[in-house]
Amino acid sequence: MVSLGELGERELVEGIRNIIRLPPGLGPGDDSAVIPNIGRDIVACVDGITFERHFPKGMTYEEFGWMAAAVNISDLASMGAVPIGLLAGLTMPADLDVRSLYDIMLGMDICAESYGAYIYGGDTKFGSGGVSCTAIGTLEGRSPMLRSGARPGDIIAVTGSLGSAAAGFYAAENGLEGLVSSSPLMTPVPRVDEGVALAASGAVTSCIDLSDGLAEGARSICNASKVGMNIHMTFLPEGEGVETVFSELGIPKKEMMLYWGGDYELLFTFDKSKMETLYSYDVDFSVIGIVTNDNTPYIDYGDRREAMGNGRY
Amino acid sequence: MVSLGELGERELVEGIRNIIRLPPGLGPGDDSAVIPNIGRDIVACVDGITFERHFPKGMTYEEFGWMAAAVNISDLASMGAVPIGLLAGLTMPADLDVRSLYDIMLGMDICAESYGAYIYGGDTKFGSGGVSCTAIGTLEGRSPMLRSGARPGDIIAVTGSLGSAAAGFYAAENGLEGLVSSSPLMTPVPRVDEGVALAASGAVTSCIDLSDGLAEGARSICNASKVGMNIHMTFLPEGEGVETVFSELGIPKKEMMLYWGGDYELLFTFDKSKMETLYSYDVDFSVIGIVTNDNTPYIDYGDRREAMGNGRY
Repeated sequence: MVSLGELGERELVEGIRNIIRLPPGLGPGDDSAVIPNIGRDIVACVDGITFERHFPKGMTYEEFGWMAAAVNISDLASMGAVPIGLLAGLTMPADLDVRSLYDIMLGMDICAESYGAYIYGGDTKFGSGGVSCTAIGTLEGRSPMLRSGARPGDIIAVTGSLGSAAAGFYAAENGLEGLVSSSPLMTPVPRVDEGVALAASGAVTSCIDLSDGLAEGARSICNASKVGMNIHMTFLPEGEGVETVFSELGIPKKEMMLYWGGDYELLFTFDKSKMETLYSYDVDFSVIGIVTNDNTPYIDYGDRREAMGNGRY
Repeated sequence: MVSLGELGERELVEGIRNIIRLPPGLGPGDDSAVIPNIGRDIVACVDGITFERHFPKGMTYEEFGWMAAAVNISDLASMGAVPIGLLAGLTMPADLDVRSLYDIMLGMDICAESYGAYIYGGDTKFGSGGVSCTAIGTLEGRSPMLRSGARPGDIIAVTGSLGSAAAGFYAAENGLEGLVSSSPLMTPVPRVDEGVALAASGAVTSCIDLSDGLAEGARSICNASKVGMNIHMTFLPEGEGVETVFSELGIPKKEMMLYWGGDYELLFTFDKSKMETLYSYDVDFSVIGIVTNDNTPYIDYGDRREAMGNGRY
């Protein structure tokens, strides 16, 4: 093994350039990168993950890299943007095997490739392990979907299903890997196509990704839009593995589906008069509730309802 | 004091939004930022600084924030680009006073403001202290200046002067703050106007910023361009404080001017047949040597010359 601390900067950059695909324009290796003219608004975000907090049992370095890219691509998706380029700000222990760093970059690059994007640059410093990834994308002329914009009477919906990431986590922690897949947890799939379609439809009034869980996402939209929500527990689409983890380990479904992060689905609200338009965009989603005047998101169990607490993350 | 670990994410974002200027388009607070249409190539870079390595004695948190912005703006400048937006990927100890974080953001914002740019987004995670900053800019149609492109016979030049950052460091470490200014070290001024003019001139064949020192910058250009350099020690423009630190503390000038990072000047090569054109662009620079076939940068003392060693950083 060669530890990171032993390697010169030039060798490291050369090593990384051999691992990842080189982008159009000018990629890693000079002072800055040049992304060819996109002729549109730029959408950008930065989000970090750390070894300490985002490296669950059983995860590989490659999956950690995928995750670093995915959390940011998901942030673009929630606005209706598509990714173009990533920049990787790495903070890594000096005694890390350099192959682990290459695996991280490879995982980032594979995730980027899945969405037609490239790694355009990076930087490595020594410290506690983590990747602060920046994603740059474009709306291609669409209006961005924001957290603000939800209005009382709008319908609340979510793409995909909820709780699979949490189920994967509990399964890995408790030796149930054979029964429940960990891939929703380890290599989440950002909803870029769905985000593009939702933004293009013109029907959506607010949107956020569920990186921090449904409860936290709902609270963020409520705060930004100054509205409340009534979300029906029975309407929530249950993810793969949730039933198994509940029956085998007794973890409440509510915890997995409401209070756990990591699903990377899109939570959005839309104008109910535009439901037909929305359906014509062919996005697979579930209606889960309605926007209210309450200023707080509630979860409704039929016989009673309770205000959603803070998320686990 | 309120420690970072006690503060919720929403409060933190709100606190930061109260500290920094809000940019045109969509700034911090949603999943991504939207930078209004620039209609040109995007230039982007990421560079990190850490408490452990880039927080010299006497530095304030505000200056640390300035530094995080400046190192990236300088990377844009070395290509001939101007900054538009910054994104701040923070890794901060949970017990940090939140005011220190606000001071970091304020320092970043003041630096950005000096160059007509804004902070467009950010993210905070817990860990060893550091800022991974991404800068996004544009060339406004100019061709980028790269590290590659220098040819034997080209003239080597540098903006400003060398060694002031090192002099500021040694002065602060040894109680000479009254004699030598620390501002070149604490709040370096990236050469954006100079970079724009150099790129616009069409005379420059390669360029790099001196964040890592003259020796390291020269080696980077030599490696990327597959050339050598002969740089004359007597031609090097001596920065403020270098003479004082040499005479008071005996630190060799060579160490401060060649092997120390932090000056953030531009090192560039240009086609000697275009010298008149370059002068017409009114950039203040010093000629320091000539590009050779050697494959290595040499420092020439008149009676002898030696290969430049590795930089201090």
